[in-house]
This record gives sequence, C-alpha cells and structure tokens, in this order.
Amino acid sequence: VATDRGASLLPSWREGDARSAILAFVERVTSSGSAGFVPPAARIAVFDNDGTLWSERPTYTQAFFVIDRLRELAASDPALAARPVVRALLAGDLHGAFALGADEVGDVALLAHAGLTVEEFATAATAWFASAVHPTLGVPFTRLVYRPMLELLDLLRAHEFRVFIVTGGGVDFVRAVSLDLYHVAPDDVVGTAVDVAFERRDGVVHLVRQAALGRGDVNEGEPKARAIHAHIGRRPILAAGNSAGDREMLEYATTGAGSTLGIVIDHDDAEREFAYESRSATDPGAEPILETAVRLGWTVVSMARDWVTVFPD
Amino acid sequence: VATDRGASLLPSWREGDARSAILAFVERVTSSGSAGFVPPAARIAVFDNDGTLWSERPTYTQAFFVIDRLRELAASDPALAARPVVRALLAGDLHGAFALGADEVGDVALLAHAGLTVEEFATAATAWFASAVHPTLGVPFTRLVYRPMLELLDLLRAHEFRVFIVTGGGVDFVRAVSLDLYHVAPDDVVGTAVDVAFERRDGVVHLVRQAALGRGDVNEGEPKARAIHAHIGRRPILAAGNSAGDREMLEYATTGAGSTLGIVIDHDDAEREFAYESRSATDPGAEPILETAVRLGWTVVSMARDWVTVFPD
Repeated sequence: VATDRGASLLPSWREGDARSAILAFVERVTSSGSAGFVPPAARIAVFDNDGTLWSERPTYTQAFFVIDRLRELAASDPALAARPVVRALLAGDLHGAFALGADEVGDVALLAHAGLTVEEFATAATAWFASAVHPTLGVPFTRLVYRPMLELLDLLRAHEFRVFIVTGGGVDFVRAVSLDLYHVAPDDVVGTAVDVAFERRDGVVHLVRQAALGRGDVNEGEPKARAIHAHIGRRPILAAGNSAGDREMLEYATTGAGSTLGIVIDHDDAEREFAYESRSATDPGAEPILETAVRLGWTVVSMARDWVTVFPD
Repeated sequence: VATDRGASLLPSWREGDARSAILAFVERVTSSGSAGFVPPAARIAVFDNDGTLWSERPTYTQAFFVIDRLRELAASDPALAARPVVRALLAGDLHGAFALGADEVGDVALLAHAGLTVEEFATAATAWFASAVHPTLGVPFTRLVYRPMLELLDLLRAHEFRVFIVTGGGVDFVRAVSLDLYHVAPDDVVGTAVDVAFERRDGVVHLVRQAALGRGDVNEGEPKARAIHAHIGRRPILAAGNSAGDREMLEYATTGAGSTLGIVIDHDDAEREFAYESRSATDPGAEPILETAVRLGWTVVSMARDWVTVFPD
C-alpha cells in the first residue's frame, strides 16, 4: 500500500503529524475505489522554491548570483560601480541596499544580466551554480536543498503525481538547475520572467534578456495562483510553501473539490538551518503564513522536529 | 534503427521528400555517436494547432465555439443581440463581422465566456467538443485532426521527444481536448491566454475569466517564440506550422545549434480538405510561409501528395 511504500521513501522524516498527514493524503488519493481517489492526470503538486525546497537565508540564492555579476560589471563600469545601491550590494549590505528602495534593487537586478541571450544566461547560471559557495554555511548552494523535500518529490512522482516548482524567483535561474537538483524539467518550473526581445543576427534568432519583467508580475501572492493556471491549466491538489507569498497558491490548491493537502514549512531550526518567521516578499504586512496555516487546516512542517536531517550528506 | 521503426509508425505518409526528411531527422537526432545526436532532454518539438494539427476552415474551430455561446447569451440579452458584430456572427457572416473591425470581433469573443471560472470554461469547452459538428464537412470537429500528424507526434514521442502545442488559439480551449486528441497534457499547451481574476467566494478560491487578454500578446509571430521560452525554457529542435504567424517560431527552432527540422503544411488538397494559401492572422502583408520555407530550407508537406489519408477513419 502507499503508506508502506511511503515509509521507505521518507527516511528523513520523523514519525509525527506532518509525516502522517502526507502519507495519509497519498494513500487516500491513490487508492482506487476510495472516496478520496484522484486520477493520475489530476495529481498536480506545486512547490515554492526559496525556503521550501532550498535555503533562502541570509537572502535568496539568486541575489548572490546577481551580486557576483554586478561585481564583474562594476569592474569595468565606473558609473555602475558608483551607484549607491550597487555599492551597498557589493559590500554585502543587503539592508542598506533595500533601504535605498526595493525598486532600486530590482532595477540593478534586472540590469545585471540584460543583453545576454537566454542561452548565455543559462550557461552563466549553470557555471555559477558549479562554483558558488554559501557565505556563512560554507558549502555550495546546490547542497542547500532540503533532503526531506527531495524525498517528498520522489514519493509523489512514484505515485503518479506531476510535480511543478512555482517560484517567486527568476524562472530561468531556477531552470538552470531544476533537473539536477529536483528532477523537475525546465518546462515544469513556473516563476518570475524577464522580458526577452526577438532578434535576428546574421540569420540566427536570439532571444535577448531585457532590463524589464516579462509576462506577468513578480510571481508572489495572487500571481502565483494565476500563473499556475496560465502554465499548468489545472488546479493543484497539493501545494507547499513557507511564506505569505505562497498563501494564495495554497488556498487555490486546498479549496478545490476532492482530496487536497496544504503544506507549510516552519523555519524553526537555528541549529541546522535558520530560525525566522517567513514574510511575504511583496506584502510585509500580510498575515504570517503559520497563522494562516492553523486557521485553514494546513499541515505545518517543523524543520526542527519533523526532519531527521535537513540537507543531503 | 529509427528509420525502420518510423516506417511502421508513419503509415499515412506517402514515400517522398517530406517523409524522408522527417525520418532522416529522427534517425540523425537519436543515433548516439552520430554528429547530429541530440540528448533526449533537448528533443523539444513544437506544433502549431490550427491548420497544422487540425482543420481551420472555413475559420478557426474556436470561432464556432464562441458563436454558439454568443447565440445562447443573445437569447436573453437584447443589447448584445443587437450589436452589429454579433448579428453578423450569428448569421454566419464572418466576412461581414470582420469588416466591422477585428477589435470588435475580438471584444465579443472575449466577452462570450467572461465571468466563467476556469473550471466552468473547461466544462463548457469539453461539452461543446462532445457535440459540435463542422458546418460543411458534417463531422464532429474532433474528427478533423490530421491523422499523419498524429502519427508524427507518436513517432517523436517514441523517440523520446517532448511534444508541445504552441497555438495562436485560446490555450484553455485547446487544453480541454489536447490529451484526448493529441495525447498532449494540458500543461504542454502554450497559447493565447485570457486574463483571470483571483476571487474568494465563501472561502473557496475561483479564477474567473475576464474580458481581456492575459499575460502576453495574441500568440502569433514573435510572441510564439517568446512564449516558447517563457513556458518551455529551451529552444526547440523541431517546429511545424502552416502560416506566417508560425514563421518566427520556425526560425527560432531551426537556427539553433545542431540538428533541426522545420515543417510547413501546404493546404493544397481541395478534394479531401481545403486548398488555400495560409496567411498570418495578425499580419496579412507578411511573406507567405511557403516562400519563407523554400528560402530557409524547411520541409514543405503537401497534403495532396504526401498524405495517404488526411483524417482518422
């Protein structure tokens, strides 16, 4: 039965309410003849990335990628180097950078890789992931994925779920490593998109990144639910997140007909990862997601109590 | 070898240049060790829908769906029934309707299903496909898919290609039947999207269709290439289309590195389907796609000469 298969597939999860809720959900959804059965085609699961599948502290992984690129550009561009927001970012002063305005940070973030073709960007992102190391944990960023969550993705796929990543991060940044890190194909990643221009150069078509967002908004909050529809076309039956920016996506998934499961990761493990209250990136005044989870009956996963191990060996 | 497998998989294709080009391409791409080998993860194939996978005459299938809905709405909405564009559409006078302005037609088309949740729309589309019959051919629209193209999709999937539909039509309309007709999952359909609003009703989230286009433009021309990147994230190695609106998508696919194939369907079979010169829906002055195909070395498929049969039995 699903539960037994699950037990062997979730070795990094401790016995407890969270693990039980996940296994019971998978059992219910996949037991033909049961009231909660969901046919495979409708087994859509969506996962936030930053803070849900990989670590997001002291800030989003992509910020380090952008800062490294700005450092390169600033070396030969004095005007860029002189911009206060760039100086703050290059000094590692994220608080100071954001104090100059989130728009200002967003502008230089978009500027950092503007002008690259989408293939050049993918190459740059792949190269960066191959060498970049987390500033305080001292390990490659690619090692900072949550092992229990990788097991959960595998468990779902073993039960004919389709697994999608729905991130507020840059879709092309995450796509560069989604297959390697999560076994999620690039086309199964939904995220914030940068505008691209269609250019012909000597007869060859290139899509060139612009210093502006593309289709859709920053992929947080309601846009996440709308992007799920735009990209996937079906309502998920499982959604997992860790911040108020994931709330609407979880509400969308868990208020559909039939069996559903909402999962919220609680970052309460200062020893093995970080302890913090997740906040919406776009709406700092939003209800904390842990309160929403309790109110709406979602499954809260305590990193400290529910996970035997946090990161891969 | 691939060619032999292909021979048994393309029974509706006559011996000839088009069939040979397709089989040679599949052979080249899938032969490990050959110079043209492409690893499975990069075997992305994109297909236009109207006029490439199913018939588009006398007009797009979706237009009949919209007109049937407008007829329902007009029965209880005298103001709508009195609009000249609606009167023309309900009288089957497409030429007269478009003479009032493409924007006017677009407006009522968007209006037709505005206010429906995405689930209600999917149900309506599925129900319509179950009963609607082509006005001159007298068979269900679902029978007007091209059998040789279904065989091609199967051939590609049998050789570890990922097959996507990239349509100028409404993405949610095509998604309603993509799995049944083409064995293409809804999330592997890219098309023109309608804006949806995020609404909570008694605690349940609904995404409600608005009378406006959503993310991106009408999915024709350059937007098709950009949408491929936004949705799939990789450059295709095979693209098939039949109108000038598919040109940029074919250029994007066929100017990438390595083995590529561009396919253009020539509607030259008045007896079994329709004979017409395909034009861009959004740019009537564009170079005819058959001329582009010759100029850029794409494979032209003559429906009259290359296909043993056009439709399924």
